[in-house]
Amino acid sequence: MAGQLSVTTGDLLDLASASALIAQREIRASELVEFMLDRIDRINPKVNAYIAILADEAREQAATVDQELTQGRWRGPLHGVTFAVKDLIHVAGAPTTGGSRTMDGYIATRDAACVARLRAAGAIVLGKLHTHELAGGATSESELYGRARNPWNLDYIPGGSSGGSAVATAAGLVHGALGTDTGGSVRMPAAFCGVVGFKGTFGRVSRSGVLARSWTMDHVGSLARTVRDAALLFQAMAGHDATDPYSSNRHVPDCMKGLETGIRGLRVGIVTGEFFESQLDPQIGDAFDKATRTLESLGAVTKPVRFELAAAAHAAGTIITLAEAAASQDEVMRSAPERFGPDIRAQLRLAEFISARQYLRALRVRAVVQAEIETMLRDIDVLITPTTSAMPTRSDGTTSAESLVLFARNMRPFSMPGLPAISVPAGFSTEGLPIGLQIIGRPFDEATILRAARAYEGATAWHTRLPPVWN
Amino acid sequence: MAGQLSVTTGDLLDLASASALIAQREIRASELVEFMLDRIDRINPKVNAYIAILADEAREQAATVDQELTQGRWRGPLHGVTFAVKDLIHVAGAPTTGGSRTMDGYIATRDAACVARLRAAGAIVLGKLHTHELAGGATSESELYGRARNPWNLDYIPGGSSGGSAVATAAGLVHGALGTDTGGSVRMPAAFCGVVGFKGTFGRVSRSGVLARSWTMDHVGSLARTVRDAALLFQAMAGHDATDPYSSNRHVPDCMKGLETGIRGLRVGIVTGEFFESQLDPQIGDAFDKATRTLESLGAVTKPVRFELAAAAHAAGTIITLAEAAASQDEVMRSAPERFGPDIRAQLRLAEFISARQYLRALRVRAVVQAEIETMLRDIDVLITPTTSAMPTRSDGTTSAESLVLFARNMRPFSMPGLPAISVPAGFSTEGLPIGLQIIGRPFDEATILRAARAYEGATAWHTRLPPVWN
Repeated sequence: MAGQLSVTTGDLLDLASASALIAQREIRASELVEFMLDRIDRINPKVNAYIAILADEAREQAATVDQELTQGRWRGPLHGVTFAVKDLIHVAGAPTTGGSRTMDGYIATRDAACVARLRAAGAIVLGKLHTHELAGGATSESELYGRARNPWNLDYIPGGSSGGSAVATAAGLVHGALGTDTGGSVRMPAAFCGVVGFKGTFGRVSRSGVLARSWTMDHVGSLARTVRDAALLFQAMAGHDATDPYSSNRHVPDCMKGLETGIRGLRVGIVTGEFFESQLDPQIGDAFDKATRTLESLGAVTKPVRFELAAAAHAAGTIITLAEAAASQDEVMRSAPERFGPDIRAQLRLAEFISARQYLRALRVRAVVQAEIETMLRDIDVLITPTTSAMPTRSDGTTSAESLVLFARNMRPFSMPGLPAISVPAGFSTEGLPIGLQIIGRPFDEATILRAARAYEGATAWHTRLPPVWN
Repeated sequence: MAGQLSVTTGDLLDLASASALIAQREIRASELVEFMLDRIDRINPKVNAYIAILADEAREQAATVDQELTQGRWRGPLHGVTFAVKDLIHVAGAPTTGGSRTMDGYIATRDAACVARLRAAGAIVLGKLHTHELAGGATSESELYGRARNPWNLDYIPGGSSGGSAVATAAGLVHGALGTDTGGSVRMPAAFCGVVGFKGTFGRVSRSGVLARSWTMDHVGSLARTVRDAALLFQAMAGHDATDPYSSNRHVPDCMKGLETGIRGLRVGIVTGEFFESQLDPQIGDAFDKATRTLESLGAVTKPVRFELAAAAHAAGTIITLAEAAASQDEVMRSAPERFGPDIRAQLRLAEFISARQYLRALRVRAVVQAEIETMLRDIDVLITPTTSAMPTRSDGTTSAESLVLFARNMRPFSMPGLPAISVPAGFSTEGLPIGLQIIGRPFDEATILRAARAYEGATAWHTRLPPVWN
């Protein structure tokens, strides 16, 4: 089909382009699915992104949506395109392991709410993607499934915990992927793998049917090769769901509408201060400065802003996450702790010593941080930082604790108060590894950060580079 | 005035009767206030209920409401009657100490929301009432103010923590009082002092301006000599208040309307099981059995029900309360722990060892308990238990830890999931000390338990007995 229609592999792998080809009936969803399954067969063994491939189910779903098109029914821009989900998210009839032996053998009986919404929009689920065990780390390795590999250099980590989601997207093994982001777990692997990673405001996308790490900080996010693709996935998932008690019933505006309208006059705060600037990798610093100038050239008005409570927000966010993770895993930690991998077990053991007093204090810090950010965003529309402070490390088990902190610390202070945020490709290191730009917005104003990210993407070509494993 | 008008002391001390006399302009609020202040002068030194008497302010407020009446303005059934509040509740310009040296010297700058609402309804605040230090115990003694005394026998404890509120009401030193109830602190002293103690559903009455013990379990409640009086105070305080983040915006029905309509056909669940029955004082058991038969004679349909999770609810409620109390007192425990009394200090020290995992587990238990109770109350309208499992102990510092548990254990399992509950006088021990009957209802269905309590009260004469300190 690709040959017959003189469409390029690139067209077939860009969600919005593939969607248009299907809508125009130039290809069928079934053909697209075979094309994707073939790529997965060839390329996945090199990168270890998929831990379960749902080929039969995907073929069945493709036949259904093709039949609908034959009958003149088109569900919308996700009709017939493919997605895959982090193995923390339930897909009915498929295993959910969270990359953990504690879940080995579990088969989900229903779709997570986010999966159900994407399916209802016509998207086809290809499989389950590698996650760091129970979303508890950044190297995306697990005792169950080994290591996911960075498509830009197989010797490097892809970041995590949604490592498989970033790898599959970057390697062209799916049109878009779902991940979860508690303190940066969508944005970090997106930055490390050179794709877009986006999470909406806390409460915007239901977590019903998603294994919990930290229920007051967990978000479902989307990874894709372009801002538009990530936005399309978000738009289909967003909105109230009564089965997630933290789900917001705020109105969801149409983020696609103003996506291409540019950022003239947008007030962009460059987050400064020791917390963000000390220990910043110089190559990332250079890429960030260039990104700032690009935004200015597009008409954005930048100014430096200080986030005084960033360090407190980071610390309190860590306490909240670990305490809630320990509560989530309480039963297994009592009955069969040996089933956790050593890093997660050590983390949960440590978390048991967090006192209720400390946890409740951390919740109070969150309220104070939210107040500071509300003030900060009164005369600023979006904030920017480098997505990570450090480049990916080698995937040989030697990643230091310090590196792990530098991976996540620019994100957690913004995740913790629940702000929407995106990472977009913003350059490459001299070693050829990707660098990300983080854009953060006001609560429930996802549209503005998507518009800013799209304007930046449109002025740069980083997202068009392809990793070595592509062909 | 009492002499001139041939009204009895009893008429003047019953809130509803005093209210009628004022409305009919047979007495003036100023006269009523002087009568109360005189009683306080004479009787309070024996029982130590008031820790601050706001005589000048009360006289001023009385003059205002009298003037309004002269001008034909009557605010409603609380116009000109008196109330007083537990010293955990702010009254503008008056001290709030919580019975704790940690608060010594503090003067409140504004009224608590509940006080403001009662004042707006025309009620006159007479003073601040003794509380167990920071609502942390049942004996109502504090380093600052000594011991409150049970008006039925000064050698016995009045219960707590709202001990002063129960004592002042029982001794006729106020028309009604406000207390706070986290795990039974309104109902227990009401039972021990032979008055009515009532708390609405969690979130029904704002806690804004009330010192926190446990913000997910604290309630403001009313104590009065009759069910009608307690209901009048509740009705004036209930309703949404944006300054308490846990305040419910549910509609508040008029509880006074059906108050006298009886309980024919009311389905009453008698809570049974080892948790409630073992260690029950036989005299309390007898009184409870008699109360059950009284309810049946009024047309109620009783049946035994089991509350399987009562013990878990009690334990989880204790964990939640202590953890939140430790968080509330965190700053002082770090800076000046010696300012706490020894029992509270020991309690808070212990609470620091509650882990976040345990606290979060307790919050989950609460959700499970709420589900069990929802099922239980599907074909039952109200539940009944003895208010306490034990009689009051001597006020000589020898109350055992076991007694303290028996005082509160019938209440905490129902407080913890936030259910509305009342204690009404239901008899006396051979030693002449009062016994209480607890009636618990569905969330936000306060009207039904008030109606049941009123029907029971109307069929009994326990509330008409007067304690020895009365004259």
